[in-house]
Amino acid sequence: MVDGKDLFSHFREHSVAEFFKKNKQMLGFSGKVRSLTTIVHEAVSNSLDACEEAGIVPEIKVEVKELGEYHYSVKIEDNGSGIPKSHLGKALGQMLAGTKFHRYVQQRGQQGIGIAAVSMYALLTTAQHPHAISYYKDKKISCEISMDFKTNKAELLNLIEEDNKEGKHGLTYEAEFKDVEYKKSDQGIFEYLRRTALANPHAQITLTEPNNETIVFPRAIQENPPRPKEILPHPLGVGAHDLLDLARAQKENRKISAFLQNALARLSANKVSELREIVKDVDFDKNPADLTWEEAEKIVQGFKQVKWIAPETDSIVPIGKEQIEKSFMNIFNPEVLAVTERSPKVYQGGVPFAIEAAIAFGGGIATAGKKGEIMRFANRVPLLFDAGGCALTEATKSVDWGRYNLKQFEEEPIVVLINFVSVYVPYTGAGKQAVAQEEDIMDEIKNAVMEAAREVQKYISGKKKAHEIETKRKVISRYIEQLASDVTDLAAAKNKNEIKKKLEKIIEEKYSQGGEGEEEKEDIPEHEEERVKEDDESEEE
Amino acid sequence: MVDGKDLFSHFREHSVAEFFKKNKQMLGFSGKVRSLTTIVHEAVSNSLDACEEAGIVPEIKVEVKELGEYHYSVKIEDNGSGIPKSHLGKALGQMLAGTKFHRYVQQRGQQGIGIAAVSMYALLTTAQHPHAISYYKDKKISCEISMDFKTNKAELLNLIEEDNKEGKHGLTYEAEFKDVEYKKSDQGIFEYLRRTALANPHAQITLTEPNNETIVFPRAIQENPPRPKEILPHPLGVGAHDLLDLARAQKENRKISAFLQNALARLSANKVSELREIVKDVDFDKNPADLTWEEAEKIVQGFKQVKWIAPETDSIVPIGKEQIEKSFMNIFNPEVLAVTERSPKVYQGGVPFAIEAAIAFGGGIATAGKKGEIMRFANRVPLLFDAGGCALTEATKSVDWGRYNLKQFEEEPIVVLINFVSVYVPYTGAGKQAVAQEEDIMDEIKNAVMEAAREVQKYISGKKKAHEIETKRKVISRYIEQLASDVTDLAAAKNKNEIKKKLEKIIEEKYSQGGEGEEEKEDIPEHEEERVKEDDESEEE
Repeated sequence: MVDGKDLFSHFREHSVAEFFKKNKQMLGFSGKVRSLTTIVHEAVSNSLDACEEAGIVPEIKVEVKELGEYHYSVKIEDNGSGIPKSHLGKALGQMLAGTKFHRYVQQRGQQGIGIAAVSMYALLTTAQHPHAISYYKDKKISCEISMDFKTNKAELLNLIEEDNKEGKHGLTYEAEFKDVEYKKSDQGIFEYLRRTALANPHAQITLTEPNNETIVFPRAIQENPPRPKEILPHPLGVGAHDLLDLARAQKENRKISAFLQNALARLSANKVSELREIVKDVDFDKNPADLTWEEAEKIVQGFKQVKWIAPETDSIVPIGKEQIEKSFMNIFNPEVLAVTERSPKVYQGGVPFAIEAAIAFGGGIATAGKKGEIMRFANRVPLLFDAGGCALTEATKSVDWGRYNLKQFEEEPIVVLINFVSVYVPYTGAGKQAVAQEEDIMDEIKNAVMEAAREVQKYISGKKKAHEIETKRKVISRYIEQLASDVTDLAAAKNKNEIKKKLEKIIEEKYSQGGEGEEEKEDIPEHEEERVKEDDESEEE
Repeated sequence: MVDGKDLFSHFREHSVAEFFKKNKQMLGFSGKVRSLTTIVHEAVSNSLDACEEAGIVPEIKVEVKELGEYHYSVKIEDNGSGIPKSHLGKALGQMLAGTKFHRYVQQRGQQGIGIAAVSMYALLTTAQHPHAISYYKDKKISCEISMDFKTNKAELLNLIEEDNKEGKHGLTYEAEFKDVEYKKSDQGIFEYLRRTALANPHAQITLTEPNNETIVFPRAIQENPPRPKEILPHPLGVGAHDLLDLARAQKENRKISAFLQNALARLSANKVSELREIVKDVDFDKNPADLTWEEAEKIVQGFKQVKWIAPETDSIVPIGKEQIEKSFMNIFNPEVLAVTERSPKVYQGGVPFAIEAAIAFGGGIATAGKKGEIMRFANRVPLLFDAGGCALTEATKSVDWGRYNLKQFEEEPIVVLINFVSVYVPYTGAGKQAVAQEEDIMDEIKNAVMEAAREVQKYISGKKKAHEIETKRKVISRYIEQLASDVTDLAAAKNKNEIKKKLEKIIEEKYSQGGEGEEEKEDIPEHEEERVKEDDESEEE
């Protein structure tokens, strides 16, 4: 047996920056093309959030220059509010710092890691400090970002603070990277920005490629979508530990009853009365600071016995049916397009979310050679990687496509768009590329996709029917001369031409497309959603 | 435009514990069954590492008790060296602390997160402090683990330090959890431990299930595998930033030339001379502390022009062909089993790794109803989740199975085992369930699987041939009476019986299984490995 002292002489403590420095692939830095997409993904998500939060219609410029083999510079410029000097280092160079981590509001970023990870990757691969220019209020601040990975602290170098003479607002972030590559592939920047434009028609996005070509994804809507409301946690979405945390963090309320009403959504004085009846051995008049774990647990159990109004839906802002239709028609011009609009649901008992699903079939989709493609978004951010472990992919694939005349999903000219909208996206990793396969989320995606699939199926079966009718019409028309003669003979009539014309008219009416008397019969019951849960017994992936 | 000051009033800094508290799913805490498996996975991995590092043959006991609905206690007891009091809190309750994070040695854990995350989950779901008993040298320490998530610090409660009268060694960790569930499913604890036993035949593992049944996975080998050597980074595996880090962290060497020889593997005085020739404008006699980024980058570029010996292979300890065969025959008793033994390769230029692949076909596999199953391991740890994004799955599926008479991989009675062995496993997430799809890794897995597949194919095509020959033999034998008569007549011979016997002998020799003159022709060239790279042009998943 080896001496234990030796073993523990290796004991060390590490910063989160050291952790992600060693495990870069967890942040999306694996593979040259993917790494470049990750860089743009983090910066553009931040820019869009910044503009929308400041109430500014986003205008974002991305410029990529090739400096050498697998060596590029990337510049991202936005017209947001800019960042004050006091926060610039932390925002761009410190992990787990920012305005987003703790808030219960629909936004693109939510971790406080992304752009600091990009700065880290620049420093690791080139040792060149990222450069930032922030036009914030009446100041223009230029600086370089330095990071100390051991302590996870950032520092500003070569800081220049000037008057904002130009009266601009926004942030320009520029850095150099190695081990990256620009490719116009399905997982490259171009496709990333194209999809970003598709899901954010209110943003104007410009990409300047390494070959100096500039592509503009023009703004299609002149104003921002409604700003999602920041909400309080729903009583069904908190655990005993959350409740204790909230109780200890607050100072405003001296009674548990008041604290509950102010800390949680949908919790009125009436609901407190109901809770008092259910959780009799908790004193709702005592100080929240004295709340014990046992009491918190009893209250959380009590929550489950009260009937609650669903979470506020204005916390959830989808792209919108009209916008998706517009975007899809612009880009793909499919033969048929079905977009579902569904009301928000909750997962984990109380976290509101909504699923938007669209299915585009045939036409431009076929021309583009696309087959069974799933385009995933979370809060309008395109997800290009890690499709395998994502709820959006798995739920879509689990649909019985045969029911909708789309047996070979992966061989059909079909694009399925899914946007997961929520105040908190349960990403499976820090790289934010896949949504965890929570049962409630899986079910709702499946329902949304099936709803759209039904519409497509109606069209396809209608088309099939139309084809059959057309065939019949042609066959009969071919024999119309003979038929006219026969009828003339049968009726002992004289005017064969007149009979022929009448016959032609009958055939035209009867067998033209969408002919009457040929009611469409739908094979799929309209409300099959209840079945979903039974189908998917195992909650595990 | 919203006032910027308001936006930045939300700015906060967070600890890594708070981050993972909010994003539990990233650590494997999503779904009740998976969460319980994650708990056992983290504790058992630690226990196995602890025993092996101390040179002790592992004996691990896992006990799961049901306390209520989705409410369990889990106890894991090992016979490792135990943990000294000074490190107990940090080891079990602080994230990013431990003996493993910074070391370049093949081990199961490598992040310093796992067991602290388990303690966190216990506290979050039940508020009950995990309990630990550590028999370390002459002390027995009992305590409870308390965690402060805001600061990521741990504290020991109710500490009792006694003399180790029993003379035991090892750690017992016990905690209560809610939102978990015991199921004997493919992703449950039972299967997890069964696979752990399969890949660790030197360990004795005992599971006591909630129904009080005890299952022993007995030790099949009486001693530990050779201890993997801790190694220095290979010159081809370090970047300029790593080199600078190493140079600044060291104090022993006063010259870059000496520092390089001591900090990196395979770097002899001769190699330094070679480097001096290549990187002429770097002064190898100056102090490593004064090494600049530009110089480090030049040295790293220089590394690429020197011919290096591959990394030390004794850093890599696979399970071993014999052991895999033994395990597989015990558990599945397949009709055919092919295990590949391949020499270690490197990825990212210098990180050594090896792939072990085994293919079991038919027999017990068919009886068990298994079809196209991939059993994944990393450093002998079973990977049960996130198969979709894992290099092991993707590389195996990318094999053209049709070439090996196994066209419908997912319909064949086949189990593929893959063990990824390395001093650093590039997991895609902190939950350590999938290996990143690095090109070198993908290629080597594919080659290893194809090598095993060729062996299986030989058997299958041999079997097919044998079947054909047997059919011919039977047909000819059926006519042997007639043939004997004919030959007798033709030869005007008398002794028909003798001729018949001779004929029978000829047929027996010619058409018996594996008959001579029927050389097997292999359809697959033995060395097709060079092709792999060309086949897989895109490095991205």
